Amino acid sequence: METQGPDIRTLFEPATIMVVGVSTDPTKVGYKVFDNILSGGYKGKLFMVNSKGTDVLGHKAHKSILEVPGPVDMAIICIPAKFVLDAVKDCASIGTKMLVVITSGFSEAGKTEEERTIVKFARENGMRVLGPNIFGLYSANSSMNATFGSKSILPGNVGILTQSGALGIAMIGRTAIDRIGLSTMVSLGNKSDLDESDLIEYLLDDPSTKVIMLYIEGVQNGERLVEVLNRATRTKPVIVIKSGRSKRGAMAAASHTGSLAGSDAVFEKVMRQCGVMRAETIDEAFNWCKFLSACPLPKGENVVIVTNGGGIGVMATDACEKYDVNLLEDPALMHEVFRQAVPDYGSIKNPIDITGGARTQDYDTAFSAGLKTDRIDAVIALYCETAMFDVDNLERMVEENFRLYTKKGIPITFSLLGGEKVEKVLNGLREKGVPAFADVYECVQSLGALYKHYRRMNAPVERTDTYKFDLPSVEGLVSRVRADGRTFLLANEAQELMALLDIPMPRNSVARNLEEAIKAAEVIGYPVVMKVVSKDIIHKSDAGGVALDLENRDEVVDAYQAIIRSCRRYNPDALIEGVEVCEQISLKNETIVGARLDANFGPVIMFGMGGIYVEVLKDVSFRALPVNRKEILRLIKETKAYTLLLGVRGDSQKDIEKVIDTVIKVGSLIMDCRSMSDIEINPLVAFDQGKGVKAIDVRVLLNKDRGL
Amino acid sequence: METQGPDIRTLFEPATIMVVGVSTDPTKVGYKVFDNILSGGYKGKLFMVNSKGTDVLGHKAHKSILEVPGPVDMAIICIPAKFVLDAVKDCASIGTKMLVVITSGFSEAGKTEEERTIVKFARENGMRVLGPNIFGLYSANSSMNATFGSKSILPGNVGILTQSGALGIAMIGRTAIDRIGLSTMVSLGNKSDLDESDLIEYLLDDPSTKVIMLYIEGVQNGERLVEVLNRATRTKPVIVIKSGRSKRGAMAAASHTGSLAGSDAVFEKVMRQCGVMRAETIDEAFNWCKFLSACPLPKGENVVIVTNGGGIGVMATDACEKYDVNLLEDPALMHEVFRQAVPDYGSIKNPIDITGGARTQDYDTAFSAGLKTDRIDAVIALYCETAMFDVDNLERMVEENFRLYTKKGIPITFSLLGGEKVEKVLNGLREKGVPAFADVYECVQSLGALYKHYRRMNAPVERTDTYKFDLPSVEGLVSRVRADGRTFLLANEAQELMALLDIPMPRNSVARNLEEAIKAAEVIGYPVVMKVVSKDIIHKSDAGGVALDLENRDEVVDAYQAIIRSCRRYNPDALIEGVEVCEQISLKNETIVGARLDANFGPVIMFGMGGIYVEVLKDVSFRALPVNRKEILRLIKETKAYTLLLGVRGDSQKDIEKVIDTVIKVGSLIMDCRSMSDIEINPLVAFDQGKGVKAIDVRVLLNKDRGL
Repeated sequence: METQGPDIRTLFEPATIMVVGVSTDPTKVGYKVFDNILSGGYKGKLFMVNSKGTDVLGHKAHKSILEVPGPVDMAIICIPAKFVLDAVKDCASIGTKMLVVITSGFSEAGKTEEERTIVKFARENGMRVLGPNIFGLYSANSSMNATFGSKSILPGNVGILTQSGALGIAMIGRTAIDRIGLSTMVSLGNKSDLDESDLIEYLLDDPSTKVIMLYIEGVQNGERLVEVLNRATRTKPVIVIKSGRSKRGAMAAASHTGSLAGSDAVFEKVMRQCGVMRAETIDEAFNWCKFLSACPLPKGENVVIVTNGGGIGVMATDACEKYDVNLLEDPALMHEVFRQAVPDYGSIKNPIDITGGARTQDYDTAFSAGLKTDRIDAVIALYCETAMFDVDNLERMVEENFRLYTKKGIPITFSLLGGEKVEKVLNGLREKGVPAFADVYECVQSLGALYKHYRRMNAPVERTDTYKFDLPSVEGLVSRVRADGRTFLLANEAQELMALLDIPMPRNSVARNLEEAIKAAEVIGYPVVMKVVSKDIIHKSDAGGVALDLENRDEVVDAYQAIIRSCRRYNPDALIEGVEVCEQISLKNETIVGARLDANFGPVIMFGMGGIYVEVLKDVSFRALPVNRKEILRLIKETKAYTLLLGVRGDSQKDIEKVIDTVIKVGSLIMDCRSMSDIEINPLVAFDQGKGVKAIDVRVLLNKDRGL
Repeated sequence: METQGPDIRTLFEPATIMVVGVSTDPTKVGYKVFDNILSGGYKGKLFMVNSKGTDVLGHKAHKSILEVPGPVDMAIICIPAKFVLDAVKDCASIGTKMLVVITSGFSEAGKTEEERTIVKFARENGMRVLGPNIFGLYSANSSMNATFGSKSILPGNVGILTQSGALGIAMIGRTAIDRIGLSTMVSLGNKSDLDESDLIEYLLDDPSTKVIMLYIEGVQNGERLVEVLNRATRTKPVIVIKSGRSKRGAMAAASHTGSLAGSDAVFEKVMRQCGVMRAETIDEAFNWCKFLSACPLPKGENVVIVTNGGGIGVMATDACEKYDVNLLEDPALMHEVFRQAVPDYGSIKNPIDITGGARTQDYDTAFSAGLKTDRIDAVIALYCETAMFDVDNLERMVEENFRLYTKKGIPITFSLLGGEKVEKVLNGLREKGVPAFADVYECVQSLGALYKHYRRMNAPVERTDTYKFDLPSVEGLVSRVRADGRTFLLANEAQELMALLDIPMPRNSVARNLEEAIKAAEVIGYPVVMKVVSKDIIHKSDAGGVALDLENRDEVVDAYQAIIRSCRRYNPDALIEGVEVCEQISLKNETIVGARLDANFGPVIMFGMGGIYVEVLKDVSFRALPVNRKEILRLIKETKAYTLLLGVRGDSQKDIEKVIDTVIKVGSLIMDCRSMSDIEINPLVAFDQGKGVKAIDVRVLLNKDRGL
């Protein structure tokens, strides 16, 4: 029986810590963790257990956990795997809330059962588990460096969670030299109990955390993660690195972490949907952390480039397009603001080119001109070392203007390109916490990340859209399929399902004789298609069993007779049950609409170009459920099918609203009826506006793992 | 009358230099250039001219150029623009070969005519011109720093040409701190005479240049550049940065350099075709320069990753896929080579994970194991700072193994991630010229660049394919169009052109009465399409003037009568000339084939998905001409149309050879008949193999700028 367990705050702000397995050997993990807690300045009560009872670093040792006066907020376990379960039991008996299991040798080494037993026991006894297989955690709020990594962690406002221990320790080092202060650094390890979602819950409310960064290799409980990230990103920026982007990388990640690798395309889209910024490299992520934790949120999207070099101005303009940064286009305003600040042979079109002859005071002049209007929301400031420039004043100039702009709530990002002196300036600025970049693209990309966050913060919270359908009838249909020993639906069952969802399909009916065929065609409306119905004739076309483009009664009569005649000739023994008469749909504007249970994120929807183009173009996109109409429209706009739906070459616009309805319907189906694992309508043909859609072909698979 | 002019070597290895306009003021350009030449250690004869006749830096001044004892290999002009032409005349009279015009204020400031006059005079008098509007040039071969940039240029084997002066000076600084040694650094400026092609001609034969890097903003003589680059990349790697990638960036570049911005998509493809590596950022370009100038060319494509962290191993695997680096997959070999070198809980699948417990000697062991086989062609070596590692030996370990591998001709690339100590190691390695990266992606990307060069060096030189056609007849056709005052071809003229190129179109003929229509349909073969021919009826469909899918004589009879009837009703006054009977082609497998005169590169060909998908998918690619069949196939493979041509959903493969033939035909047409500027076949429908292609719609434009 699991209990609710302690508040997650206990993990970051424990009043008492007990380290279990503190060795006297300074190269051992237990010693390092204990030493780091001591030298890190942790203010709470600290106990340590060491089986020999030897004091370490002047601290009294307890020979056993049971000797420690409980209750204890956090126990850090650094003993060999085989002793961990007993230690956990002892922890329970003295009243422990959080277990931080540093020890490795569990599920990552195939010992999944041992790990599960520990977690089960812990949860039943009111404890939560971080790890196992971790390097520990750091929390600036309680000056707690409970890691076996570096002693020198710079406190600050970036909260990092990492699934890779090795990378985490290296990242501690890198953040220190990049002067990125940390509010937390948590090693997630095997995520046997606590996972990123639990920890984000803390970080999103933690006032000392301004930016959240995650390194993950695999997602387990994706549905919860989506929910938590959706909330977190409305409070502070969340940056994620997920390795295993490539097919081979995903295989390597799976064998290394034991996580089930989901599709990276789905991960990418779901993160974007949640407002999470995905970085590809560690450098990228750190640049964003540095910039976003130091800069104010802009008030609008009017950005101006100020440069002393035409070439880097052009590069920055390119980078703005790449990273979705909007350059202000208002020649009159530019003229009014910058005319006085720029020499005649410079440019006052955005990029503002103050020319290679510019000195420090010319930058100052241009920047203070920029501050005089409230129409400029952010500045990209570029400096290229020139023969003329007094680099001695560069650092002062950058720092002062950064502070001035920041104070007015206007982000400013600098790129400084040059030699030794410029490198010294960059280092000096780094020490002072002023973000500045050597590379123009990095500089613009960081502002682009800030704008992503800005847009997320300004996006209205949207209610999700769902479709109510007759669930009992759908479940009845599923039962019948299961009873038949199948996990896929037959054509008529798929038709029944579409009818339950009110998704139209081409009208059709089976005619047993010519009269019925004529009647069916008249009811359906011309043109129609006819196909022989006979389980003895597989290749209907080869048998002459198909007729297309039947436009009137006479053609139906001719075709019916022709079909029966050629099929009899083709296979005289075939039992011909009749002829299917079907509405003929012109296969233009084909889309694909689908929903499935993703290995990582549970129910997701999919949309894209349909028909044969699914294979040729692979032009599909995804969203996690639940979702709303606006988000579905964004999804549609990500694909080339959108251009198609708008109408190409003078063709009129298609019924996009009905396409969205269909996506909501299949999404609601997979959300509510978890015994389905895969629904795919391909093609879904979209007609002109107001004329709706039709599902031509439908494929439905049931979940193999669960019954109804 | 232009003369051949001096050898381009004279620019880089002048025996005599004359600096014109050496000021006594140390902040002036003339002084700086002269000072840099002196302190740079130039060994040749050096003269200087200064109108006041004042000695500078202990050197004798000449009051006039005419006083300098000629002949002079190179004159460097640093005087105001208005005096330059007279100085150039004086230079000619004492016998000067190369003019390096540093002065600005010419075409970049609208004074195009003045610039042209100077170049014209120079060329007529046997001189060549570099510039104007440049910061000068550096050449390690003659220890010549004839720039007004930094005094400290590190000599080495990277040759840089830059169109942006500001960026060039900043790059000199950056290369110095990155320890990238330069063989040359040339400022191209306005490229009034000498351009990048001329200078590459020197660099490609220069033994001290191992890597060529270009920064360009606009291409003028693209046809020549393609030819030169095609040769250069078969000798040494060529890296290019071209800004103005984005639409807005291209506009900024055009206004800043005055160059005509061509399509960036064309530039991208043409560079790839020439074997040039395009970098997006300066950081990228410098990383590649550093790595490619320090590493041997690999012998094959079997790459192994060695890492002490699972996470970075996965990231490197992702990066390998992104940057096209082929990871060796041979578990038996990996076992044989690395089993002894890796602990049991590590991994001997590639990536080889020597685990977080690895120390220096474990890397040494793994690397020396890797050297024992000749099946490993390159190594990606990753290090993540751990709590256990003795960073003190890291620098020694990296350097030694780098030297060992390099000596055996095996490239090895390192990524070292960590804190302060690791940063010191990276700096130490940089000083020693050992390429090592902090970021995993940069590390792999650099190896990817080396492999691009490797593949280029190993690609066979292919002869170009062309198609011989009846040029006089084509020119006759063009004359008739011009005589009619048009620069576009009418439908029948386009048909005539296709016939001259032997590119099939759907059969058609105009019938003046029912009998002719029937006869035409029988000759063409069913199904046919019929359309009314009348200049009085524009919207044929609206008038009921079109009939599709006519499958036999009866249908043709009915349709003919119906068309005439409804057109008469639609417009009783219309003069109906007849009915066009046309072969009906099923519009599947639509491609687009085109050729045009590109603003930068002259004749280029284009291929992609055709039909309405041209607009929806924008799936086209380009090549500069001339080209051969294999390259055209590569072009086709870059587009999604290739999947289509292979046959989707069980459809059989299409006639790709005939598609290639068509591309060669339109390519040859635009190469040989320069009075055409644009040819576009859309769609070109491809039939099953052996069944050829058909051009459904053809659009041809003539060059507005030239006559026949």
